[in-house]
Amino acid sequence: MGEFDLIARYFTRPATRAVLGVGDDCALLQPAPGTQLAISSDMLVEGRHFFADVDPFTLGHKALAVNLSDLAACGAKPQAFTLALALPRVDEAWLAAFSKGLLTLADAHGCELVGGDTTHGPLNICITVFGEVPVVQGKSQALLRSGARSGDDVYVSGAVGDARLALEALRGTLALPPGLLVQAKSRLEQPTPRVALGQALRGVASAAIDVSDGLLGDLGHILRASGVGATLDTALAVNLLASRRHPDWPEAGIDAERQMELALAGGDDYELAFTAPGSARDAVEAAASESQTPVSRIGRIDTAPGLRLLDAAGKPLQRRYASFDHFA
Amino acid sequence: MGEFDLIARYFTRPATRAVLGVGDDCALLQPAPGTQLAISSDMLVEGRHFFADVDPFTLGHKALAVNLSDLAACGAKPQAFTLALALPRVDEAWLAAFSKGLLTLADAHGCELVGGDTTHGPLNICITVFGEVPVVQGKSQALLRSGARSGDDVYVSGAVGDARLALEALRGTLALPPGLLVQAKSRLEQPTPRVALGQALRGVASAAIDVSDGLLGDLGHILRASGVGATLDTALAVNLLASRRHPDWPEAGIDAERQMELALAGGDDYELAFTAPGSARDAVEAAASESQTPVSRIGRIDTAPGLRLLDAAGKPLQRRYASFDHFA
Repeated sequence: MGEFDLIARYFTRPATRAVLGVGDDCALLQPAPGTQLAISSDMLVEGRHFFADVDPFTLGHKALAVNLSDLAACGAKPQAFTLALALPRVDEAWLAAFSKGLLTLADAHGCELVGGDTTHGPLNICITVFGEVPVVQGKSQALLRSGARSGDDVYVSGAVGDARLALEALRGTLALPPGLLVQAKSRLEQPTPRVALGQALRGVASAAIDVSDGLLGDLGHILRASGVGATLDTALAVNLLASRRHPDWPEAGIDAERQMELALAGGDDYELAFTAPGSARDAVEAAASESQTPVSRIGRIDTAPGLRLLDAAGKPLQRRYASFDHFA
Repeated sequence: MGEFDLIARYFTRPATRAVLGVGDDCALLQPAPGTQLAISSDMLVEGRHFFADVDPFTLGHKALAVNLSDLAACGAKPQAFTLALALPRVDEAWLAAFSKGLLTLADAHGCELVGGDTTHGPLNICITVFGEVPVVQGKSQALLRSGARSGDDVYVSGAVGDARLALEALRGTLALPPGLLVQAKSRLEQPTPRVALGQALRGVASAAIDVSDGLLGDLGHILRASGVGATLDTALAVNLLASRRHPDWPEAGIDAERQMELALAGGDDYELAFTAPGSARDAVEAAASESQTPVSRIGRIDTAPGLRLLDAAGKPLQRRYASFDHFA
């Protein structure tokens, strides 16, 4: 099968939203009047972002999910995406499953595949995603990293640390009971981008980011961009490790220190970390409820730069947690 | 050097055109009223699209040039691009040269780097480029592949076949005198995207495509998308091999058959192949002159499907030329 047949068979569908989709030199998008286009790119590399033997359906899901998560962090409504794919070989079963995982998630979010590229090479998936953000009275409604203010509450959606727990189990650095592994693995391989929550937080949250490299590291980006610091209640954060509520959890024997590390620096969660003024607590609750996404308040923004961690008794913790860095 | 330092040092510059550039979860673009956004992605893989030892400055140039060429083929004005980069290691000298080649071409076209991704992995460069196309009275001015009509003239810009000539010399399948190799190599490694010509052809050309896989193969896309055929004068096409006019050309000893193959199926030229009605010959000349880009008329669109090749005497040629396919 040649390049053009491959594109036609697995990746070409009629454009419904875009003016022009797959098949010409460019795709054409017509943003609605009064909107801006939010754009994000993520590249996934075999051996770095996923194991060579990962289920291609979940890989297709994840490749788009991590990009949709960036749109969610900006409060953008998904519109379209391009896919550039380097493949070591043409494996039709793999392509069928990969494209199904990709397009199932795309359909769930009304996000249309409008173009891209396929080439021969070590497996590499590069997606660029486009979303719409309203502009109201000349002001963009995009959620940025730079809007956190002293006194704001710090929130995180859903669960954190479970993806990393699965990763460590797959790497063999710890052993998990089968039922727990399945649950944690689905967090690693099929993350849920918080697209509805991001949009519901427009005009409510003061700053937002998606948690891809680890809660503390990603929250650190908000703090630096906003010129503020924060104090976190680590007991509340550790509680967000959903695996702790699995019936087989006690069998796993993960000590308290490791649980803390997973929750605070785990990475690959694709939750939203965000801040909002204290006056917006009801609005945050409403956004969570409207988007059917749990959110937890875990700390507060301070004037003093840096991140302060408190234990359950409110005493400062000295331990530092390294965030994920692709080149560190 | 970590991922964030790398981005800050080599790829972050203040946004001047975009609402928001590098550094948040998304970039924000605000297309001008009455315009559409043209989008294209290209992925370049080491060993497939470039040699491992290629000069990183020219690689940076080429990575963006091949994307700008897609905008040119749509008649779009470059606006912005994202860069996703997988690197086997952090090599500062390489990054400095690569980013300089990339950003020098970007600046020449007013095309702003607004975001992207960096990760560890086999060298892979994925660029997604954004351009603006006017919409006049509800009608997109984008040049598409599908507009060629029987009786239209077939044109190609600049030179074709020289990039492939250089590639064959670098692969060792033929030997070139040094001066000729330098000239041909610059066509391979630093192609000129025909951005100004593409814009000048809006409202003039009936269909357009950029020549990346080879003249016949790419022209074939226009023919299929337009439901027409064409007849080409191969003597005129071979004349577009610029190396034939180099003083050292006779020394290279490239026979007529090989010249034909280079010109018709060479690939990597990043010229524009386009069609226009006979009534638009003066307008095509004016577009070429305005954009300071030579164009040559090499054939005509017919009703009968397929591509017919004529020799200098006007007699049909039977030989077939294979177009480049990444998976063939």
